[in-house]
Amino acid sequence: MNKTVLTDCHKRIIPFIHNTPVLTSTLINERLGCKVFFKCENFQRGGAYKIRGATNAILNLREAQRRNGVVTHSSGNFAQAVSLAARSLGVPAHIVMPTTAPKVKKEGVVAYGGQIYECEPTVEARQAKADKIASETGAVFLHPSNDLNVIIGQGTAALELLAEQTDLNFIFCPVGGGGLIAGSSLSAKYFGQDCKVVGGEPFEADDAYRSLISGKIEGNETVNTIADGLRTTLGDINFPIIRENVSKIVRVTEEEIVLAMRLVWERMKIIIEPSSAVTLAALFRDCKENPSDYQNKKVGIIISGGNVDLNQLPF
Amino acid sequence: MNKTVLTDCHKRIIPFIHNTPVLTSTLINERLGCKVFFKCENFQRGGAYKIRGATNAILNLREAQRRNGVVTHSSGNFAQAVSLAARSLGVPAHIVMPTTAPKVKKEGVVAYGGQIYECEPTVEARQAKADKIASETGAVFLHPSNDLNVIIGQGTAALELLAEQTDLNFIFCPVGGGGLIAGSSLSAKYFGQDCKVVGGEPFEADDAYRSLISGKIEGNETVNTIADGLRTTLGDINFPIIRENVSKIVRVTEEEIVLAMRLVWERMKIIIEPSSAVTLAALFRDCKENPSDYQNKKVGIIISGGNVDLNQLPF
Repeated sequence: MNKTVLTDCHKRIIPFIHNTPVLTSTLINERLGCKVFFKCENFQRGGAYKIRGATNAILNLREAQRRNGVVTHSSGNFAQAVSLAARSLGVPAHIVMPTTAPKVKKEGVVAYGGQIYECEPTVEARQAKADKIASETGAVFLHPSNDLNVIIGQGTAALELLAEQTDLNFIFCPVGGGGLIAGSSLSAKYFGQDCKVVGGEPFEADDAYRSLISGKIEGNETVNTIADGLRTTLGDINFPIIRENVSKIVRVTEEEIVLAMRLVWERMKIIIEPSSAVTLAALFRDCKENPSDYQNKKVGIIISGGNVDLNQLPF
Repeated sequence: MNKTVLTDCHKRIIPFIHNTPVLTSTLINERLGCKVFFKCENFQRGGAYKIRGATNAILNLREAQRRNGVVTHSSGNFAQAVSLAARSLGVPAHIVMPTTAPKVKKEGVVAYGGQIYECEPTVEARQAKADKIASETGAVFLHPSNDLNVIIGQGTAALELLAEQTDLNFIFCPVGGGGLIAGSSLSAKYFGQDCKVVGGEPFEADDAYRSLISGKIEGNETVNTIADGLRTTLGDINFPIIRENVSKIVRVTEEEIVLAMRLVWERMKIIIEPSSAVTLAALFRDCKENPSDYQNKKVGIIISGGNVDLNQLPF
């Protein structure tokens, strides 16, 4: 692995993605005592960063592989991203979604031309269904987070952020399956100047926090969190990258998530999903517990997505 | 009146306002068959365009007048704007607000240092209370929409939009008290290239539509609309400007307002208030009724604000 893997990926996917804006908020800076730069992947195609990894993975397939299509499983954002990326590249997309996935995300998949297959909301059921489709159709399985091409693609959001703000002291990311934070930590390593990467995770789905302590991949004991994108667990490809390059993981309560989400909606006037609010909540908590670490520092936050079901709001 | 009045005003207020971004949406362009440019005043200081006019009006006061402060009445956005502008300029701000004003807007006024005086939600009660405060304190009354300095200030949003997109065929504005559309129509006249200005108004508060037909200022028969910023009526200073420079006013139903608001929240991931959704709803309606007027044309929309009470959402 070296930095050209990331820059080559970025060049490859640029025609298919937006270089999303970086926003700031005077009020949030004043409250935290540091300068926060929000990388707004909620404005990305498909409403989340996931199109980056999906596009990179499909572009890495051989022509013969592309003809048989791709298959994946996802609670929503990766499903939309694969559908959209596959359509842009003329590739069929088979999407396994749990029955609990938000309606707005299912509608997105259909609108982008993906074919949905429903399954029970467990990791095992998702994988079994996806394997079955792969063997029946010859489609290539794309894992939403535990695939090196996907990880590198997701890392390009932090790469763009560091191109704009070269001297960030921290980058905060949400941690779900681990693809975004693994990719972001590679970008921080190769393009940052001693830029630390911190993960945000709900107490209710704190597998990554416990995995870093135990040194092996842990499952979730509960997934009773509003952050529907963060209910998944780490994988054997992204975990070693995370162990090596992520400084720490900060856990937050459900109340902290909703407060951070509301603050961004009300003050910044942008729609972010609960999984993205986890990251700002983690920064608020760590700023309170370790204020001297952040005083006058520059902190990047990856706002991972804005796909919210407006019929299911927490306020 | 000439174009330098607008450019001088813009130069004067620039240190106190944001030059807000102009966003586009591929999906909305595809649905309408024209290119739409959203001037995002929801990202403005105070969450709405009103800071422009408030700042210009205060900057036009003499030093001796500023010492006694300013007083205004407003359902919310102008109240926040005057508080914020007055604080920036070291001037006391007395704010009359109807008891029905959204809580989030009252909180904004307090946060920006304005002093609130509550009154009944009628035009007469607002004015009586403001007049009383003016006579007791010596504060100068600032009308939220029927004041030439305010009108010119509000027109600078369209001026900035036309500086970025010089060949707009249309600018759509919401119509409440008439300040924004009057100012926008002056900018379109002086800086556009045959750029027509169209107003959007709820059927439930269609005073401006009827005023343009009758040729005199009409009141509202009902104000039963979700667009809380548009319940006011035109004034004798802005009405002649509107009559001369606005092409037409398109009325929309409450259902159309909520649908347009939801579309922008879900697809563009930005928070706009109902009064701003009226404008997009008006464009959707007029595009349907007169499609050939808009085919492949360039349309600017002033997104007037993003101050929404998240506890009172219509979905």
